[in-house]
Amino acid sequence: MYKIVLLRHGESVWNQENRFTGWHDVGLTAKGLAEAQAAGQLLRQQGYAFDLAFTSVLRRAIKTLWTVLEELDRMWIPVQHSWRLNERHYGALQGLDKAETAAKYGDQQVLIWRRAYDTPPPPLADNDPRLPLDDPRYASIPVAELPRTECLKDTVARVLPFWNDTIAPSIKAGKSVIIVAHGNSLRALIKFLDQVSDDDIVSINIPTAQPLVYELDADLKPIRHYYLGDQDAINAAIQAVANQGKAKG
Amino acid sequence: MYKIVLLRHGESVWNQENRFTGWHDVGLTAKGLAEAQAAGQLLRQQGYAFDLAFTSVLRRAIKTLWTVLEELDRMWIPVQHSWRLNERHYGALQGLDKAETAAKYGDQQVLIWRRAYDTPPPPLADNDPRLPLDDPRYASIPVAELPRTECLKDTVARVLPFWNDTIAPSIKAGKSVIIVAHGNSLRALIKFLDQVSDDDIVSINIPTAQPLVYELDADLKPIRHYYLGDQDAINAAIQAVANQGKAKG
Repeated sequence: MYKIVLLRHGESVWNQENRFTGWHDVGLTAKGLAEAQAAGQLLRQQGYAFDLAFTSVLRRAIKTLWTVLEELDRMWIPVQHSWRLNERHYGALQGLDKAETAAKYGDQQVLIWRRAYDTPPPPLADNDPRLPLDDPRYASIPVAELPRTECLKDTVARVLPFWNDTIAPSIKAGKSVIIVAHGNSLRALIKFLDQVSDDDIVSINIPTAQPLVYELDADLKPIRHYYLGDQDAINAAIQAVANQGKAKG
Repeated sequence: MYKIVLLRHGESVWNQENRFTGWHDVGLTAKGLAEAQAAGQLLRQQGYAFDLAFTSVLRRAIKTLWTVLEELDRMWIPVQHSWRLNERHYGALQGLDKAETAAKYGDQQVLIWRRAYDTPPPPLADNDPRLPLDDPRYASIPVAELPRTECLKDTVARVLPFWNDTIAPSIKAGKSVIIVAHGNSLRALIKFLDQVSDDDIVSINIPTAQPLVYELDADLKPIRHYYLGDQDAINAAIQAVANQGKAKG
């Protein structure tokens, strides 16, 4: 049996401002940093140690990982970064305020864009400055493969090769693994692992910086999963994520 | 022509206390963290960007590297850790105060232990709790190869395989490389690169967190080297390192 830990980054500046962040590279808030420290302390208290870490190329995830590794005295383990663990690309919604977007398009449309499995938001235009064409972290990706928008189905399609080719073999090789990523890249992974239906994935919400343990069998099929820590606090955090897409009163 | 950057970690807790640190894993002081931030800002202002970083398995070097990468917006580049970049192992001196040791043994003996090329301090005994036998970061090193003391010659001997097998091929492959390490593992590397004599290496001192640029030819032979930044401040910092081994008045 294997045990892995999934962790969504701590609160970011745009989580706090309730904006669609996607691939925009914002940092953690002071609260987000404290959340990451708390996650690291919780993992340490529960005896977790990791041999190998996977994360995205976005600073809010990397900083969360580094903070956890510092708390665990595991700053020296190998870390593999991949754009395939990035947040879902939010297309033309990137940078827009979620409540404003909801007020303009309605809760239902926003819920569809946020959560419908196969309906992407409008894509970025060719000349949109939000396209990361000059960003060296994406230099190795052919321009045609650079997402301009994604629905969760698209995110699943680009997360899975990294799981199958890189993460899964490491777990089977006996490495103790932590994956620090984003709300939707983790939902993509969970959808695959737990074979969640396209409909049911809409209502699965992942709170920031709460260690989510998956116990896997020899074929990496989940046996069970659970959040570490105070379950009431976690349920409240999950509900808060679910409420983010709704228009404010 | 290639260009690489060598960087000694910022001030550590035991630098501040003037103790022989060696493999003991102490953190940065607030000043050391600020030094690392300043190094990162200086590198950014001068247009440095890196594709690949090498560092030790000790937190003072790793934290310095992370801080630099954060300033450079390069948190996503691959980092390779190796015990071969660790500080020189100081044997039985680890943890002792440098000025006390100098007062007890005399400046000359301490200078020999600190700087003589081939005279190691007394080794750790088999039962010394300072031996990192249970430390997972060294689990892959055969116990017989774990240093119990080192002179600089020993440090050169274990740094060079990592340079030859891992760092040098990366540079030749066109990667822009930063190496964040320790006073003596960097002196070991410099001795090799510049073919410094066993006598002359004694008087070479490396200040904390000052980016040291080496320009290398196609065979990785140095063309020239220089510190970035305010040269007067750097010379003062170099002199301060040279004075650390002397008894305090």
